[in-house]
Amino acid sequence: MGPHPAVAAIRLAVRRVLHDVLTLAPPVAVPSGDRRPLVLVACSGGADSMALASALAFEAPRLGVRAGGVTVDHGLQHGSDLRAAEVVSRLAAFGLDPVEAVTVTVGREGGPEAAARDARYAALDAVAERHGAAAVLLGHTRDDQAETVLLGLARGSGIRSLSGMAVASGAGGRYRRPFLGLDRQTARKACMVQSLPVWDDPHNEDPAYTRSRVRHEALPVLEKALGKGVVEALARTARLSRDDADALDAWAADVEPSVRDETGALEAAKLYGLPPAVRRRVLRRAAISAGSPAGSLFARHIEEVDRLITGWRGQGAINLPGRVAVRRQGGRLVLRQG
Amino acid sequence: MGPHPAVAAIRLAVRRVLHDVLTLAPPVAVPSGDRRPLVLVACSGGADSMALASALAFEAPRLGVRAGGVTVDHGLQHGSDLRAAEVVSRLAAFGLDPVEAVTVTVGREGGPEAAARDARYAALDAVAERHGAAAVLLGHTRDDQAETVLLGLARGSGIRSLSGMAVASGAGGRYRRPFLGLDRQTARKACMVQSLPVWDDPHNEDPAYTRSRVRHEALPVLEKALGKGVVEALARTARLSRDDADALDAWAADVEPSVRDETGALEAAKLYGLPPAVRRRVLRRAAISAGSPAGSLFARHIEEVDRLITGWRGQGAINLPGRVAVRRQGGRLVLRQG
Repeated sequence: MGPHPAVAAIRLAVRRVLHDVLTLAPPVAVPSGDRRPLVLVACSGGADSMALASALAFEAPRLGVRAGGVTVDHGLQHGSDLRAAEVVSRLAAFGLDPVEAVTVTVGREGGPEAAARDARYAALDAVAERHGAAAVLLGHTRDDQAETVLLGLARGSGIRSLSGMAVASGAGGRYRRPFLGLDRQTARKACMVQSLPVWDDPHNEDPAYTRSRVRHEALPVLEKALGKGVVEALARTARLSRDDADALDAWAADVEPSVRDETGALEAAKLYGLPPAVRRRVLRRAAISAGSPAGSLFARHIEEVDRLITGWRGQGAINLPGRVAVRRQGGRLVLRQG
Repeated sequence: MGPHPAVAAIRLAVRRVLHDVLTLAPPVAVPSGDRRPLVLVACSGGADSMALASALAFEAPRLGVRAGGVTVDHGLQHGSDLRAAEVVSRLAAFGLDPVEAVTVTVGREGGPEAAARDARYAALDAVAERHGAAAVLLGHTRDDQAETVLLGLARGSGIRSLSGMAVASGAGGRYRRPFLGLDRQTARKACMVQSLPVWDDPHNEDPAYTRSRVRHEALPVLEKALGKGVVEALARTARLSRDDADALDAWAADVEPSVRDETGALEAAKLYGLPPAVRRRVLRRAAISAGSPAGSLFARHIEEVDRLITGWRGQGAINLPGRVAVRRQGGRLVLRQG
């Protein structure tokens, strides 16, 4: 008799990613002399990442992969250090090695959720570098993906923000998300049938957090209004949007040099001839290379710059974040950081 | 003292569209000999289209445009003929001429909402043709647009379904939506301050209709979870997605001939070299030109055909709607209607 279907599903998802890692990542020489690639799992102790850790522990030895684990202590809740120690002992009990807890200091930039995420990835990067890990597995599920798409939709900044999380991201595709096609229920079920205790992060239930409101309020009502397939539809939207955004970014990168004159200024007539979707991306690229920070540059900024091309009536300089001013002068757009 | 801000807003929106119509539509010779272009308003008697009719009646004479109105009796509710007669008399009271009610028979294809919409547009097309109208104004607001984006999101079929309604659509851009940037509240307010009685279509409140559930359940909860800017964000997503989808469609149309061999078959190696977003659009175009009906061709169909390129392992023919079969034979995709 084979494993429970939920356990089979999480193992298959991890196996596929490990095959991919083995194909792409040649064995790395490490001080210990073990040349098998190392794959780490990032584990909060919640159901998704505990299921992931259990599947990694099962599959890795069968495929000639070393498996380790790391948990991040954000220091945001009382007793988080004890929690981290408990996760470490659970990961070690799976037979993962190395296993460690890292403590981070969460700043304030971009709000509490973004600050925690930035601190977490910086810590995971450092751990991965230190151990020479070929990959770090993350437990995001299709439900997380659907939530991310809705959060992106609320920004209204275009299809890149609808493209959610990638299957592989970070330097060299280090971060892998084997469960992006699985629903949260499968991960929970897999923990249950394997008798794995899981920890429910109280932040996940806290309506002060936007993601928590999306999870517990918005998505259930959307499903009621639009039908049960909403999570799947949002996840598919993410995949399609990502490919679309990649293709349009490539088009803009390709065409950008041809719309600049010898001084590097953008020629208005040539910009005007581009499809609006491509033109706006060229303008965004130009703003970023002039010094405007990508994260502060919104669709409305680019729309305003675009009106120097499509609605020219002698308007003055447009000020962008990062003290970048855009002026139209003699049929050219000049971007300058002040 | 000028008009109330809501009335000023609806008039400005209509004025802009009339300017545009005058620029694009040269005066048309009509039997009556009046060469001023005719603009019709489609009016249900609801707040949005009553506001639109009032603004058209005010602006048209000032700009040398003839203004008429039409209301569609869908025959779906008891007394809808009386309702239509009442709308006709209100439109006539605004000074619109010609004014008429047209009765349609709503079929069943695609569900009740799609069938009613198809019948309505067919009737409006016929009226516009008969009168030689330069444009037909529709009362869709930014709120309608946001609802349309959410409905498209639920289909999960990519960014074209996120692009909502166009500012101008139909043959030669006949249909115009002056209120697409205005919120529903502004239209209601404009009716109120002008003492225009409005009719609330009971279908709009009927939870049996998906759009009604989106309006009354999904959007309010999304606003609560994500913040007040959701409607605006969804409307911006529609604009950006439309431009993106147009650009990618143009790319696919441009590249398609170059990936076909002399027999018209698609060359797998050339398809493989395209960005996935462009390749999928080329495949979709090919399926449609082989006879697959666009409306029945979903993202999952195209994904399956795409796997003949990206995941070739000798699989058999893929069957698409409209009895179109796609086979990979000797490095080529052959599409044939059976």
